[in-house]
Amino acid sequence: MSEPEAAGDNVNNEENNPPESKTENKNEEEQPEPPKEMKAVVLAGFGGLKSVKVMNKPQPAVGEGEILIRVKACGLNFLDVMVRQGVIDSPPKTPFILGFECAGEVEGVGEGVTDVKVGDRVAALTEYKAWAELVSVPAKYVYSLPQGMEFQNAASMLMNYVVAYILVFDIGNIRSGQSVLVHSAGGGVGQAISQLCKTVSDVTLIGTASKHKHESIKDSFAHLLDHGVDYVQEIKKLSPEGVDIVLDCLYGDDANKGYNLLKPLGRYILYGSGNIVTGETKSFFSLAKSWWQVDKINPMKLFDENRSVSGFQLRHLLYQQGAHEYVRGVVNKVFKMWENGHIKPVVDSTWAFEDVPEAMQKLHDRKNVGKIILDPNMEPKPKPKLQTKGSKDKDKEKEKDGKAVGETAAGESTDAEKENKEGDSSAPSCKC
Amino acid sequence: MSEPEAAGDNVNNEENNPPESKTENKNEEEQPEPPKEMKAVVLAGFGGLKSVKVMNKPQPAVGEGEILIRVKACGLNFLDVMVRQGVIDSPPKTPFILGFECAGEVEGVGEGVTDVKVGDRVAALTEYKAWAELVSVPAKYVYSLPQGMEFQNAASMLMNYVVAYILVFDIGNIRSGQSVLVHSAGGGVGQAISQLCKTVSDVTLIGTASKHKHESIKDSFAHLLDHGVDYVQEIKKLSPEGVDIVLDCLYGDDANKGYNLLKPLGRYILYGSGNIVTGETKSFFSLAKSWWQVDKINPMKLFDENRSVSGFQLRHLLYQQGAHEYVRGVVNKVFKMWENGHIKPVVDSTWAFEDVPEAMQKLHDRKNVGKIILDPNMEPKPKPKLQTKGSKDKDKEKEKDGKAVGETAAGESTDAEKENKEGDSSAPSCKC
Repeated sequence: MSEPEAAGDNVNNEENNPPESKTENKNEEEQPEPPKEMKAVVLAGFGGLKSVKVMNKPQPAVGEGEILIRVKACGLNFLDVMVRQGVIDSPPKTPFILGFECAGEVEGVGEGVTDVKVGDRVAALTEYKAWAELVSVPAKYVYSLPQGMEFQNAASMLMNYVVAYILVFDIGNIRSGQSVLVHSAGGGVGQAISQLCKTVSDVTLIGTASKHKHESIKDSFAHLLDHGVDYVQEIKKLSPEGVDIVLDCLYGDDANKGYNLLKPLGRYILYGSGNIVTGETKSFFSLAKSWWQVDKINPMKLFDENRSVSGFQLRHLLYQQGAHEYVRGVVNKVFKMWENGHIKPVVDSTWAFEDVPEAMQKLHDRKNVGKIILDPNMEPKPKPKLQTKGSKDKDKEKEKDGKAVGETAAGESTDAEKENKEGDSSAPSCKC
Repeated sequence: MSEPEAAGDNVNNEENNPPESKTENKNEEEQPEPPKEMKAVVLAGFGGLKSVKVMNKPQPAVGEGEILIRVKACGLNFLDVMVRQGVIDSPPKTPFILGFECAGEVEGVGEGVTDVKVGDRVAALTEYKAWAELVSVPAKYVYSLPQGMEFQNAASMLMNYVVAYILVFDIGNIRSGQSVLVHSAGGGVGQAISQLCKTVSDVTLIGTASKHKHESIKDSFAHLLDHGVDYVQEIKKLSPEGVDIVLDCLYGDDANKGYNLLKPLGRYILYGSGNIVTGETKSFFSLAKSWWQVDKINPMKLFDENRSVSGFQLRHLLYQQGAHEYVRGVVNKVFKMWENGHIKPVVDSTWAFEDVPEAMQKLHDRKNVGKIILDPNMEPKPKPKLQTKGSKDKDKEKEKDGKAVGETAAGESTDAEKENKEGDSSAPSCKC
C-alpha cells in the first residue's frame, strides 16, 4: 500500500452533501468550489504532544474499491504514540491525519464495493487517517459489525483483540494446561489476551503491570507481578519449570528474561501493534535496538533448548505483507467470540479529539486500564485558563489561516511538563 | 537421567530364567553364577561402521520403576548414525549398546510399576540400549501398544511419528489451507509428516528428496523437488508467496533458503531426533555449525517480517528436559490416529542385528523409503567370503575372549569403501 496522502491533499470536489461549517474562519480565496471540510487530528511534525493538532481538513474522496466511513469512535493505540514520536519505519511526511482504527457508519462506497452499503455499521483498520470525522478506507480493511455491537465496543476490540488472537492462538498455539506470561497486563492488548486465554481450559495467566493497576485487573490474571521488582524470581517460585508462552511488547531486558523463563517447547513472542525503527532511532528505542543487536539468537540454541522465537506486528502484516484476508478471518472469529459472550472489551475512557494529547499522555504513563477511545462528536473538556496573552494571540493568527479549529490547551500548557518527562524517558513502555 | 551404564556393567544375578546359550564360547572363569547373556549391538568406539559389533552382553536387571522388555523389533534412526560418529553432545563412554527405540513383550516389571504387566505388548523410547534382546527401561518411556499393532509397526512409528506430530501440530500449528516444505521427504520422518499433514484439509505438501526416490514417494507430496537443483526457484514458481512452514533437518544452507521462503506468519523449524554437537565437532557437522554461527537471527528481523524460528529435538526433550508426560500424550494421539486408520507407517526394510552396518549405510546414503527396522530374531544375510585368513584368525581370538558372537563381514569388507566415502562426506544428511 502506498504512503497515505498527506492530509490536505485529498480534496473531494464531487461530494453532494452540503459542506459542514465547523469553523467560522475559512480561507476565502477564489476557489470555484471550496472543498468540504471535516475535523481531524493531525500530526504537524514528529515529536511531543504539541505536534498533535485538531484541524479542519478536506473531506476525503471515495476512490474505487474504497468505503467512506462517518467515524463514530476511534481507538488510541501505543502505535499512535510511536508514530507521533517518529519512531516507526517509513513514516509518512507530516502533516497527516493520525489514527489506525475506527468504527462508524458507511457514508459512501466506491466503485466495485459490493459487500457493504450506505448506512451499514462497520469498523476499519486504516493505515493512518482514522482520527477524523470521515475516512475513506480500502474495502479490504473494513469489517461489518455484528448486530448489537456498539461503535465504542468495535473500536475497543478491533486492533487489540486481533493482535491478541493472533498471538495467543495462531503464533502461541496455546493449549489446555499451559501457562502464559503477559507484560503490560493492564493495557488493552493485555486485557484482550487474558480474555482469550480464558476461553481455553486450565491456562495459567501471569501478568506484569505497574503496582497501581493490580487492584483493577486482579481478576484477569492468576498472578500479578510488579514489573519493577524481580519478577523472574517470583515466577520461578510460582512455577519452577517456567512458562509455556511469553508475550513481550516491552523489548529490551525483558526479552532475555522472558526467553530464559521458557519451558521446553516454549515460545517467546516479541510483538507490538506498534513498531520499532529499523533505521535511525530516537529516544528509548535506541536502547532497545542496541540490546537486540547484541543478543542475536543462534538457531542451534533453539535446537538444543527446544524453543521458539517469534516476532509479530500487525501493521506490517496488514499493510506491507498483504495479509488482509487472513486478518479478516481473525476479525470474524473475534466478532463471533464477542457475539457468544466469550470476550468483552474493557474501555478505560473516552475522549474528544481536542483532548488527544491528554489521552496519549495517559496511555504513555500506563495509567489506563483497558482501551482509550476517541469520539469525534464529543465535546472537549473545559480548558484551564492558563494561556498567556501571547499564546492566545498566536492562536488567533492560526485561526486566520483558516485551518486550526482548536489546539488542545492541555497539550500546550498543563501537559508541557509531562511531555518533557516523556521525552526523557529511558524506560521501554508499551500498551500497544 | 544419568548416563547409560556402560554395556557389560549391568549384570543380573537375580534372574530366574535359565541362561540362554547363544554362543559356544563363554568365559569359563570361576564365577559362582555366570551372568545370563543376551545378544546386543554394541558401539565399540566412535567412528565408522567397523565400530558397530554384535556381542553377547549380560542381561539387564530390572530396577525400581523399570520395565524389562523382550525386544522384537527396533527402529534405526539417523540419530544412531550420529551417535556412532560421536557427533552428539554428552555421548556415553564406549562400549555401550546402541539404539533409541524398540517394541516387544514385557518380561519383567520393577517395583512400583503398575501400568503394565508381564506379557503386555509395549514400545519404548530408550536412552540407548534398545538394540538388544532385552532392555530394561524406566516406565516413563514405555507405551502400551494398541490392539492389533504389530511390533514392527510400533518400532516404525514411535520416534518418527512422535517427532512428526510435534513438528506439524504443536510447533508448526498447521491449519487448513497452509503449505509445508519438507526436506528429506523420503525418510521415515518425512513420510510421517506427509501422513499427518494429510489429516488436515487443504494442506499443500512440497518435499525435497533425491531424484531416485521421487517415483516411490510421489503419492505422499503434491510437489516433489530434487534437493540437488535450485528448489527455491521451483517453489517460488509453485507458490510465489512462499510457504507457511519449513521443516528442516538438513541444517546448513537450507536454513537460509527455508527462512527466506516463509510467508508472513511463517515458521522455520530446525529439527532432528538426532543432534548436532555443541562443543567439538567432527566431519560435516563442523560445516553446519560454522554456518549457524555466522547467521544468527536478530529478533528484530522476526518482528519486522512476522516470522518464527523454532528448534526441536526429541532426545533433549525426553531425557534432559523431562517432558515424558508430554511425549506420552503425543504417543497416545499418534496411536489413536493409527487405530483410526489415519496413519500407516511405511517400512523400508528389516535387518538382522549382524547386518546393522549395512542398514546404517543405507540410511546414510538416503537409499531407504520409510523406516529401517532391526529384528533381533532375524537370521543375518549370508556373508560374502571375502575375509582374509588373517582377519579370520583375529575373529577366532575374539571368540576366545568370550564376547564376540559375530562381527558383520559386510561392515568389515564390502562396506569399507563406502565407509571411507561416508567419513569424507561434506554434504549434510539427515533422515532422523
